[in-house]
Amino acid sequence: MISFILMKKNKKEEFIFASTICGFKASRRPDLAIIYSSLPCVYAGVFTQNQVRAACVDEDIRLLSKKKKIRAIVINSGNANACTGKQGIQAVKETKKIAAKLLNIHPDDVLVASTGVIGVPLDMVKMKAGLEKASSTLSAQNVKAAAKAILTTDRFLKVFSKNTKSFKLFGFAKGAGMVHPNMATMLCYLMTDLKMPQSLLQRALREAVNISFNNISVDGDISTNDMVVLLSNCQSQIEVKSKNDPVYKEFKKVLLDACWKLAKDMVRDGEGSQKIILVNVKGAKTGSDARKIARSVASSTLFKCAVFGRDPNWGRALARVGCTSVKIKPEKLDVALLNTFVYKNGQPIRFNPQTLHRQMKKNDEIKVNINLKLGKKSGIAYGCDLSYDYVKLNSAYFT
Amino acid sequence: MISFILMKKNKKEEFIFASTICGFKASRRPDLAIIYSSLPCVYAGVFTQNQVRAACVDEDIRLLSKKKKIRAIVINSGNANACTGKQGIQAVKETKKIAAKLLNIHPDDVLVASTGVIGVPLDMVKMKAGLEKASSTLSAQNVKAAAKAILTTDRFLKVFSKNTKSFKLFGFAKGAGMVHPNMATMLCYLMTDLKMPQSLLQRALREAVNISFNNISVDGDISTNDMVVLLSNCQSQIEVKSKNDPVYKEFKKVLLDACWKLAKDMVRDGEGSQKIILVNVKGAKTGSDARKIARSVASSTLFKCAVFGRDPNWGRALARVGCTSVKIKPEKLDVALLNTFVYKNGQPIRFNPQTLHRQMKKNDEIKVNINLKLGKKSGIAYGCDLSYDYVKLNSAYFT
Repeated sequence: MISFILMKKNKKEEFIFASTICGFKASRRPDLAIIYSSLPCVYAGVFTQNQVRAACVDEDIRLLSKKKKIRAIVINSGNANACTGKQGIQAVKETKKIAAKLLNIHPDDVLVASTGVIGVPLDMVKMKAGLEKASSTLSAQNVKAAAKAILTTDRFLKVFSKNTKSFKLFGFAKGAGMVHPNMATMLCYLMTDLKMPQSLLQRALREAVNISFNNISVDGDISTNDMVVLLSNCQSQIEVKSKNDPVYKEFKKVLLDACWKLAKDMVRDGEGSQKIILVNVKGAKTGSDARKIARSVASSTLFKCAVFGRDPNWGRALARVGCTSVKIKPEKLDVALLNTFVYKNGQPIRFNPQTLHRQMKKNDEIKVNINLKLGKKSGIAYGCDLSYDYVKLNSAYFT
Repeated sequence: MISFILMKKNKKEEFIFASTICGFKASRRPDLAIIYSSLPCVYAGVFTQNQVRAACVDEDIRLLSKKKKIRAIVINSGNANACTGKQGIQAVKETKKIAAKLLNIHPDDVLVASTGVIGVPLDMVKMKAGLEKASSTLSAQNVKAAAKAILTTDRFLKVFSKNTKSFKLFGFAKGAGMVHPNMATMLCYLMTDLKMPQSLLQRALREAVNISFNNISVDGDISTNDMVVLLSNCQSQIEVKSKNDPVYKEFKKVLLDACWKLAKDMVRDGEGSQKIILVNVKGAKTGSDARKIARSVASSTLFKCAVFGRDPNWGRALARVGCTSVKIKPEKLDVALLNTFVYKNGQPIRFNPQTLHRQMKKNDEIKVNINLKLGKKSGIAYGCDLSYDYVKLNSAYFT
């Protein structure tokens, strides 16, 4: 379905895809994907804030800072090529060179991304063979195969696709499945045809990521390789020229929908998780304040354990409301768990814990509503429960 | 042993103690302690940074800001009296009034502390009966009983005691055992005879806490009730008048020893933990920078899981080095795990993972040494592994 969404009769306007097995994964599942655009694309990107970054991230940031147009993205899974020193930098350069030659483009037309184990050199013999195989099979039909090849231990595909009368947007992502150590990386690739300058594309992506991906938490660890990339081949009839353009506003809305959809998929697929935690904070002075507090609650180890036990232990959620840099008034706070008030105007409310326990068992999404009563802004964050399986998956041996 | 350390023949110079069972704990274990000084004490304190604080913390901070002298501390376990609204504030006032009357002192001579479940009103009938019973049994011999009564699910007593020729210091603490939800509170009470002004006592305590207690992590959640209190009855022969006094420097050293000893005991007793993680960061520009990075590594959920699996997954530790506000140079970093270099000058080093795995099995303390090579300062942090038992203990049902 989504494989045809950006397709036109004219091949020159296509995004096409390929995937293959290089052998980076011990499981011999697909571990290499290529995204290729027949036209140079305007490129926006948001990257991990970790100072310990993979070489590919540094290289992609360099191209972004030059506002380079992009033709292809090479993504491998099974090896993050992070903390691999000079050898890692060399591997990224070589990957770009090999891909560029095969695709008949310039090395700086190519973005590179990796996800997998940290600190193990990338096998460039495998990479070269994989690129040669994959590049000969590029086709519009392979979009799902590409979306699959970037996964590590994800339990399901994460895709988004939407057509409006003004533009098209689709994309895929991989999230927080970490059976093998360090496969915590979040990758997301979005493609559109909406014509606009790089500054507006970048602005839209930055805003959407701040509200969505930056407010999900599986374990609070920031990867060395995280990235969200948005490409536009600018083939839409309509051209957006300013941030006040109604089509731009519509695009931002659809982009945010895409990011939230894929971000929620990641939480739902969080390793070992059985329940989603949705924290909704209202009554904040700014949206950023609201999101900061929502994130603090959604990432509490203690509250995550309580949700795993279906335990209506609202005190753990409330305690996290006071732990951010946002100034609050504890005496004003309201807290509701699955729509049952447990705390109002800074006072605890009597409730039947057995009833709430049963409701927590029944619901897949555990909603926590918090009202700060300090302003009119709101924000949400998603987390997941912390289970035995999380510990099991993440204590597995290194090799 | 420690019960006699501050004792003098003259009863007027004593710290004495009592404990009893009020019934706040379902287990019917001791849950009330009184610390009483026959002389007014200079009082220093450091409290939780959480804005959602128990009423007793607010009240103790009020007395600290007035530089009040203190005669007694009432500590109950089994109920945190936090998030209990106006009823909670009233309970603290009443506790002070009842204790003051029984001990024949002023209500504002009394500090109050609580640890236990959040959001459940404190039963003042039980509190009154407990205070009446305990206050009649105050004696120097009861120090261990008092140290025991403040525990919740701690597996062992946490005490410190030291005599120098200039002063005496002793104290006890409770730490991060959380079988019952929300019993995450860290409490620590230290007593000395060294005569000095309040400003110097407070300064010494603040510095010691910043270096020690603030650099341990069990689960990253900040309690509503944390406190470290230091009292001096000023009965030493020597009087400290300035921060340059060599006796003050000696006192600060012993105080830091006390805080580190008790802090390490807390980590060792961290719920479900089997291994201690010691992160040693050197080559930082400031001690604060070093501690910030050490804390970031010691509190990584992913690295804690790896340590539980005795998995030499150094990439997870390294990734956390880049996640603080401290500017680093990734290409300079060295990382050693149990004294085996795994990363040097930003390059991975080959090692035998099986050998390191076996060493991690054998050692109770997993040492991570990190050299930033940016300066001459260092700092350490302690954490513990994340086990199935942690999840089990903290997913237990609310009631």
